[in-house]
Amino acid sequence: MATIKLWTDEEAAIVPDVKTVFDDIRATRKSDFVNNFWRALANQPRLLERTWSSVKQVMMEPGVLDPLTKELVYIAVSTANSCSYCVHSHTAAARAKGLSDEQYAEFLAVVGMAAETNSLANSMQVPVDREFLIG
Amino acid sequence: MATIKLWTDEEAAIVPDVKTVFDDIRATRKSDFVNNFWRALANQPRLLERTWSSVKQVMMEPGVLDPLTKELVYIAVSTANSCSYCVHSHTAAARAKGLSDEQYAEFLAVVGMAAETNSLANSMQVPVDREFLIG
Amino acid sequence: MATIKLWTDEEAAIVPDVKTVFDDIRATRKSDFVNNFWRALANQPRLLERTWSSVKQVMMEPGVLDPLTKELVYIAVSTANSCSYCVHSHTAAARAKGLSDEQYAEFLAVVGMAAETNSLANSMQVPVDREFLIG
Amino acid sequence: MATIKLWTDEEAAIVPDVKTVFDDIRATRKSDFVNNFWRALANQPRLLERTWSSVKQVMMEPGVLDPLTKELVYIAVSTANSCSYCVHSHTAAARAKGLSDEQYAEFLAVVGMAAETNSLANSMQVPVDREFLIG
Amino acid sequence: MATIKLWTDEEAAIVPDVKTVFDDIRATRKSDFVNNFWRALANQPRLLERTWSSVKQVMMEPGVLDPLTKELVYIAVSTANSCSYCVHSHTAAARAKGLSDEQYAEFLAVVGMAAETNSLANSMQVPVDREFLIG
Amino acid sequence: MATIKLWTDEEAAIVPDVKTVFDDIRATRKSDFVNNFWRALANQPRLLERTWSSVKQVMMEPGVLDPLTKELVYIAVSTANSCSYCVHSHTAAARAKGLSDEQYAEFLAVVGMAAETNSLANSMQVPVDREFLIG
Repeated sequence: MATIKLWTDEEAAIVPDVKTVFDDIRATRKSDFVNNFWRALANQPRLLERTWSSVKQVMMEPGVLDPLTKELVYIAVSTANSCSYCVHSHTAAARAKGLSDEQYAEFLAVVGMAAETNSLANSMQVPVDREFLIG
Repeated sequence: MATIKLWTDEEAAIVPDVKTVFDDIRATRKSDFVNNFWRALANQPRLLERTWSSVKQVMMEPGVLDPLTKELVYIAVSTANSCSYCVHSHTAAARAKGLSDEQYAEFLAVVGMAAETNSLANSMQVPVDREFLIG
Repeated sequence: MATIKLWTDEEAAIVPDVKTVFDDIRATRKSDFVNNFWRALANQPRLLERTWSSVKQVMMEPGVLDPLTKELVYIAVSTANSCSYCVHSHTAAARAKGLSDEQYAEFLAVVGMAAETNSLANSMQVPVDREFLIG
Repeated sequence: MATIKLWTDEEAAIVPDVKTVFDDIRATRKSDFVNNFWRALANQPRLLERTWSSVKQVMMEPGVLDPLTKELVYIAVSTANSCSYCVHSHTAAARAKGLSDEQYAEFLAVVGMAAETNSLANSMQVPVDREFLIG
Repeated sequence: MATIKLWTDEEAAIVPDVKTVFDDIRATRKSDFVNNFWRALANQPRLLERTWSSVKQVMMEPGVLDPLTKELVYIAVSTANSCSYCVHSHTAAARAKGLSDEQYAEFLAVVGMAAETNSLANSMQVPVDREFLIG
Repeated sequence: MATIKLWTDEEAAIVPDVKTVFDDIRATRKSDFVNNFWRALANQPRLLERTWSSVKQVMMEPGVLDPLTKELVYIAVSTANSCSYCVHSHTAAARAKGLSDEQYAEFLAVVGMAAETNSLANSMQVPVDREFLIG
């Protein structure tokens, strides 16, 4: 698996642009664990830097959506896009942020229901009601 | 648009299985508005009944996820599945449930970020870390 | 709509490679109607020829799947891929081949159910049972 | 793999809501085999019950589409949604219902052709012909 | 259409964060035209700023892929994701960057062929050859 | 993995229609390696022949797009369709055709950016600007 090399800490240590991001990942998360997604992106230091910077801003800065809600939205998109890696990593993240079994059960029900009605609406090509349009 | 007829209230009135669901939609939502999705499903009364019953259970019964979170998950799935109808209807539903402009802005940022990282992880075929696996 | 020009019959008449395909579409279907998909593909005569040739072989030659089953499979794929044009054209084709309202209702139920369970299996990342593997 | 635990028969035996569904799966299919999808859903007993009940109604009740056609539609959707689990399980189910190699070959040709023309129609953004619209 | 308001130039003029981006779009592209995508994102000034900044870096900075190749990759992704807006806007951009009819015809053939073989490989669940793996 | 048998060279040797294609794959690519995609398609000799013939025409004949650009478009589609097999095989093909690490880094940035803006445009249901329409 993987179309590119996964960087070890030793390899990261000798490329400053990569090391800086790995260090910031560890400091921000208060954990020594750097997951494979970042080890793969290390092959492209500039993309690594921009992606980490965006993820940090979008997922970790305080805002008006709580962190768990953001993770659920993330898993929902990842499921629909069949991203096995992302489903695994963000489900783990959601659990770390307190997702209970009951919440996960409700989440799965919503994800399944959405996919079913998406499919029905797309099959029947239902026209959008005027009431849903803006302006 | 639409591959099937959209049922008017007059047509629904004379088919008891359809009328029952339309009446329940109105009573449950406390609104006279029945949107096109249900008017299209009325062509298949049994599917109409089962779908409405599931939506009511999944989206409207009290649970451990708040109603707005469920709508955001719904829109996220619908966006990834390119269901224009569903995006319109559930964004309207989310606003009706109090989605603020600030929340919507954060939601969009998460949806976009998830799609980007899904694409990166799928392109690089990043292997799932052991740490994310169960058991 | 359309990122390219749709060819009229007058335009097609003066490009032999396009005219030949349009003539064959009409002869094969025993109808004067040439739908927009082919009028768009006419901008790429070689792709037009290869695509029509494949569609004719796959969808119209006698085989071991009946023509209506093939159309249902086609609509199922088109729905999941959110191809509005293809859903419209192949639902019309299915009706022309005898799709009844009862059959369409059952088809929609299967398409919706499949999408729902796809989403659940992808969310939970269910491992494939050994029993389903070949060899 | 899997973001949740797969329930063993021993675990299922002590939760009545799960045991009832597992028993019904075995009785309905006349087989002792309960595949991983249901063992994963067992974590959410209510979703397990509703999903099994819908699958039984949609896929197993006698209707106007034959069981093999329904399986082909199911695999078609699962393929387009990249659900590896679902493709495996429903291809196995289709074979159990008599899918021949010749039928499978034709099915694959249709699935491939549909995906190709979906992509072409979406790329060129071909407008829907008036002739395909209802009403 | 649109789940949010599209900002006019008058509205943008009075919100400095939005005005700055609109001005930069115009200056960078040497054109007065600001397309709807940015007028929609203006509702979320921070997301507008980050997205424009990334697009500018990824699509417009000199690099080792030529600008037309990047546009073709962009359209390919947008087609597979059924993003009608993006297909339209990036096909227009590709033409502005010199896409010829012959190149577009070859591009469409590749996009269609990729979708077809994706579908076949996903249907048959073909295992990845060892020869394609890294390391 | 795989829902069908992968053909060995010994098995291919005794079915002329399959042997002819395998021989042509080897001759065309000047390599003894026949990858699993073709070994799976060998179960459907007619589909094998048509698919190989199209791939050869689309991907290998001299044209106006260079071979590496075609591979990048192919990977882009395969990524969006979550075809793990296709991403692996065509990334390997792209590298064999000279894809540099720098080019791959830029390609990934474009693929990720496209997916993100697709998601944003689909979420906000941005209407297509008149300026992007043909005719």
